[in-house]
Amino acid sequence: KQLFIGAEGTLGIVTAAVLRLLPRPAVTATALAAVADPAAAVRLLRRLQSAVGEAVTAFELVPRSGLDLHFAHCGKRHEPFGQRFDWQVLLEAQAGAARTDLTRDLESALAEAIADGLVLDAVIAQSDRQAAALWRYREGLAFAQVEDPGNLKNDTSVPVSAIADFIDHASAAAADLVPGVRPIPFGHIGDGNIHFNLSRPLSMPPDAFIARWPALTEAVTRAAAALGGSISAEHGLGRLKRDAIGRYKPAVEIELMWRLKRMLDPDDLMNPGKVLPPL
Amino acid sequence: KQLFIGAEGTLGIVTAAVLRLLPRPAVTATALAAVADPAAAVRLLRRLQSAVGEAVTAFELVPRSGLDLHFAHCGKRHEPFGQRFDWQVLLEAQAGAARTDLTRDLESALAEAIADGLVLDAVIAQSDRQAAALWRYREGLAFAQVEDPGNLKNDTSVPVSAIADFIDHASAAAADLVPGVRPIPFGHIGDGNIHFNLSRPLSMPPDAFIARWPALTEAVTRAAAALGGSISAEHGLGRLKRDAIGRYKPAVEIELMWRLKRMLDPDDLMNPGKVLPPL
Repeated sequence: KQLFIGAEGTLGIVTAAVLRLLPRPAVTATALAAVADPAAAVRLLRRLQSAVGEAVTAFELVPRSGLDLHFAHCGKRHEPFGQRFDWQVLLEAQAGAARTDLTRDLESALAEAIADGLVLDAVIAQSDRQAAALWRYREGLAFAQVEDPGNLKNDTSVPVSAIADFIDHASAAAADLVPGVRPIPFGHIGDGNIHFNLSRPLSMPPDAFIARWPALTEAVTRAAAALGGSISAEHGLGRLKRDAIGRYKPAVEIELMWRLKRMLDPDDLMNPGKVLPPL
Repeated sequence: KQLFIGAEGTLGIVTAAVLRLLPRPAVTATALAAVADPAAAVRLLRRLQSAVGEAVTAFELVPRSGLDLHFAHCGKRHEPFGQRFDWQVLLEAQAGAARTDLTRDLESALAEAIADGLVLDAVIAQSDRQAAALWRYREGLAFAQVEDPGNLKNDTSVPVSAIADFIDHASAAAADLVPGVRPIPFGHIGDGNIHFNLSRPLSMPPDAFIARWPALTEAVTRAAAALGGSISAEHGLGRLKRDAIGRYKPAVEIELMWRLKRMLDPDDLMNPGKVLPPL
């Protein structure tokens, strides 16, 4: 079945599935932690994984640029902390076992991280309502970008240990192409899947910025590939990255993709024109 | 890469691998629990998964027949409990977080299960040495079978919810073929992978029992398949089950296996003669 996951319907149609159900988590703990930079965020993830083990279920990078866009979009500035920080992480831990006191475990882990200087400030939700309010910082920056004219979305991934370098290199490359560009790198640190989105310089008309999309996308993609990353993470290839994958994957992998495709779909009936680069 | 896992080298040779390392678990809790029957063992697994969540890392069925064989093999009978029980489960829970008191959590979950009558008796290891002693009950029954003349090994799997029925049906089918046969169903309840091994009746010469192996294997396999199971679990197909898979898998799946094989290995160079049934 793994062959069909990510094939985007190009190999066949799923007509039946057996689902394995897992119990809904009994306890959830949610927090927002401010850190100095993405490298500190990655170190915090490692530390929390030692402290609460496999329970870490969300670990989302939230940059200042994204918060500011969110505040501008919703028309009010409600800073999460007493002072402004450049980087924060929205994190969540969940466990199936009602006995586990995750909030307490998270509290002591974050208190230790503050004492060590790894975390600059932190807030832990004490209720579902507070947890939802923390999530709005993360979700709000995505919503705000939808209505930010010219905003360019990216979906690359790199090894988790390369996230900080990736953000540095991609930011420099984008600024070379469009001085004043505003990177909004956010998302899933645990997967190495940072959405390195870009907002236009405030003085630049959206159309002029959109004209630079291909060059910017190529620069971000190249930065990810140079660090051993992938040009696509959770949003697939579709038509948009169909040609690019042909430039970034070794020829032998492309040939294997085509041989699989021809074997399973010799008449090219299944979602034609997607995923596979033209030969 | 999933295509190559389980292909047993018939599709190619792995020449490089990237390993993802996880921290060694910081805490381990080990226990042996006596239950009335395999159905109770499955209910206990579900209950522990609610109590300690994803921490359950081993849940091994240990039948009386296996314990007796182990005691006979090592020449002394050291019963784990004050009385003899027909079925027990060797269970282990592990967590990456040093803060988690798994032994305490396991203790209260087992105490509740005893109060409810689901567990008949239980012992929890208080040291690594005691944990190793509990594991010897499970490992000893596998070692003992190696030197039990004529012992027939099986490696089927069924949905976890069908484990109790599988043991009932396979036991009845085996006893029909060889009255007095001693089933030793043991192993991995969480995977639905019970090794339904069979020892000869004490009065039957090993050679006479070995002559019945094909019929017994077919009966066990049929019992697993009738419950939606698989003829092979963790030990693969190799040459031994190469022909059987052709009888149990739908023709379209066998054809797909061959098309994949021919596409990747057109000259049949890779581990020829294994896994795929002759056409």
